[in-house]
Amino acid sequence: MSRCLIKKEEVQAFIVRCMTAVGTKQHHAQSLAEVLVEGDHRGHYSHGLNRMDMYVKDIKSGICAKDGEPELEKESAATALVDGKNLLGPVVGNFCMNMAIKKAKEVGVGWVVAHGSNHYGIAGHYALLALKENMIGMSFTNTSPLVVPTRGKECTLGTNPISVAAPADNGDSFVLDMATSAVALGKVELHERRGDPIPVGWGCDADGNMTIDPKRVLSGGGLVPIGGSEATGGYKGYGLGMMVEIFCGILAGAKYSKNVRTWKVTDRVADLGQCFVAINPENFAPGFNGRMTELLGIHRGMDPADPHCPVLAAGDPERMNMKKCDDMGGIPYHINVVNYMNECAQKIGVSELLPCDKIISN
Amino acid sequence: MSRCLIKKEEVQAFIVRCMTAVGTKQHHAQSLAEVLVEGDHRGHYSHGLNRMDMYVKDIKSGICAKDGEPELEKESAATALVDGKNLLGPVVGNFCMNMAIKKAKEVGVGWVVAHGSNHYGIAGHYALLALKENMIGMSFTNTSPLVVPTRGKECTLGTNPISVAAPADNGDSFVLDMATSAVALGKVELHERRGDPIPVGWGCDADGNMTIDPKRVLSGGGLVPIGGSEATGGYKGYGLGMMVEIFCGILAGAKYSKNVRTWKVTDRVADLGQCFVAINPENFAPGFNGRMTELLGIHRGMDPADPHCPVLAAGDPERMNMKKCDDMGGIPYHINVVNYMNECAQKIGVSELLPCDKIISN
Repeated sequence: MSRCLIKKEEVQAFIVRCMTAVGTKQHHAQSLAEVLVEGDHRGHYSHGLNRMDMYVKDIKSGICAKDGEPELEKESAATALVDGKNLLGPVVGNFCMNMAIKKAKEVGVGWVVAHGSNHYGIAGHYALLALKENMIGMSFTNTSPLVVPTRGKECTLGTNPISVAAPADNGDSFVLDMATSAVALGKVELHERRGDPIPVGWGCDADGNMTIDPKRVLSGGGLVPIGGSEATGGYKGYGLGMMVEIFCGILAGAKYSKNVRTWKVTDRVADLGQCFVAINPENFAPGFNGRMTELLGIHRGMDPADPHCPVLAAGDPERMNMKKCDDMGGIPYHINVVNYMNECAQKIGVSELLPCDKIISN
Repeated sequence: MSRCLIKKEEVQAFIVRCMTAVGTKQHHAQSLAEVLVEGDHRGHYSHGLNRMDMYVKDIKSGICAKDGEPELEKESAATALVDGKNLLGPVVGNFCMNMAIKKAKEVGVGWVVAHGSNHYGIAGHYALLALKENMIGMSFTNTSPLVVPTRGKECTLGTNPISVAAPADNGDSFVLDMATSAVALGKVELHERRGDPIPVGWGCDADGNMTIDPKRVLSGGGLVPIGGSEATGGYKGYGLGMMVEIFCGILAGAKYSKNVRTWKVTDRVADLGQCFVAINPENFAPGFNGRMTELLGIHRGMDPADPHCPVLAAGDPERMNMKKCDDMGGIPYHINVVNYMNECAQKIGVSELLPCDKIISN
């Protein structure tokens, strides 16, 4: 597989050029570019540059607003309700999370929800903002229905992610960023493309039966919640997906459950609901970071079942990926993705394209 | 199986008699009795009367404090840190949750954590307190290490439950109350007693390998996080278990991870950490309850995969169990449990025992 190494700054600048070419405000484009490149840097390519054309299309078609700023609708010392004004998800997300952090500085916790939002990239981005202030951060979003609840046979919930970040000493941290489905749709698509079966517990067919055939999951079936079948605790993942929906669509008064628009169909505004929480450890027992460091150390230092697979803490795989990128001096992208994005750019009149001169192979 | 029907009030009064007989304050005994009987009423027998002897023993041995009240250590408009003073878990839990609700009435959210606590019964009890005020309630506790993290072979996390309750119209609600392990230890013990194998994804052996032999799970192995193996997303359950530990032991400055005392070994004080959150929907978009009703209806009204197994919402199985009890006019207990508890009562000088004259069979 040929891959092409590109500096973070170059990818960001390219995304900004493309987004502004279709009319996005400079600082909105900048917010989006940062979140997408962060997704790639952390190794979550499904939420990075790869999705730029979706955002370009949303702005170009007018289904996502290019003008305005999020508006505060209701506020208390610890809470806020925000109207995202149908702006790009990262614009809404940064606005809300910064507000949550400000409230947590004042009263120890900030709980901010938004309606009228759009796809906001990796949920982890917003939780990570809180780490910079030595706070616990949380972020949740509802998404298009792709998950079949336990005992059901219709998709009524999105992959509804949960992200929680907590600071330890010396810049170390715990960063959980997970869908409440067993796996992401992209993983099932990848297995289908390769002709491989999927493990039991990833998805079900149109009759609601667990299947190992990715085709059945993708045509009329759906992903299943974390935990898989009812016998192995799938109803817990279903409950967590509902919890995210309650914090997002229901609390914010946005679209929710099967009323969220179909994935990849952009016939109407998304009106997603999102939830952002900051918690200030200073309001609780002294020595939080030290205890976090010990908690992480207990797990990372544990004798692993397989000597070749060390026990990790949430966020470690991403940290390793970022280090790998930084050591190489850039993010490796599949050449097809780079070529495709450059074609998209040319179509909208952007001439300064992504460089693809640094080919690496692995 | 012979079972014995006993009125809720009779069970509560019996627990109060036993707890006060060993020196528990009347209102502390009352708090414990309510939580335990609520556990049974909701169908979670593992967290009810069945555990009364553990609490009696804790008070009798002095390992759990019988005197004093929880103390507020630090406070802001939205947060509080509480010292549970080693009192019974329900005494600490009710104190904290009521405080969280009070704060949520004032500033929209209350986030209260306690150290120095003990087993608090079903996590759901505290989340349910918020429902009475038409609020979202959440409750978390750390527990004795019984769960092996993904890739590990040592128990470093408890079954660390998450409970989230949210009100709908006309007294209806969503009530999630789940361990972050795939199943409870009791389920594995039950399979061992019956000589049945367990499904893959419930537990692992002492080498950290997934096993279907309950004996191996119980002797040196452990439960695994929701999601089961790494391939089916067990690292997500592991991350959620850590999240609960961060909200409880780490934020509150209580014992945490493998430093929490061993399950059923009461050689030292528990010093559990617990976290209680209330969120007032009135601070967010109007019409919360109506949307909750629709969300629940979408799921309950869905065409099920198996016509005999309707799709449920979190809290529905418990609601059905409570209705069944109420229709019968009491809670059905296994006769062995009633006899055992009556023996315990006699040993501590309690003469008014549980009535076991209403035998039912099913």
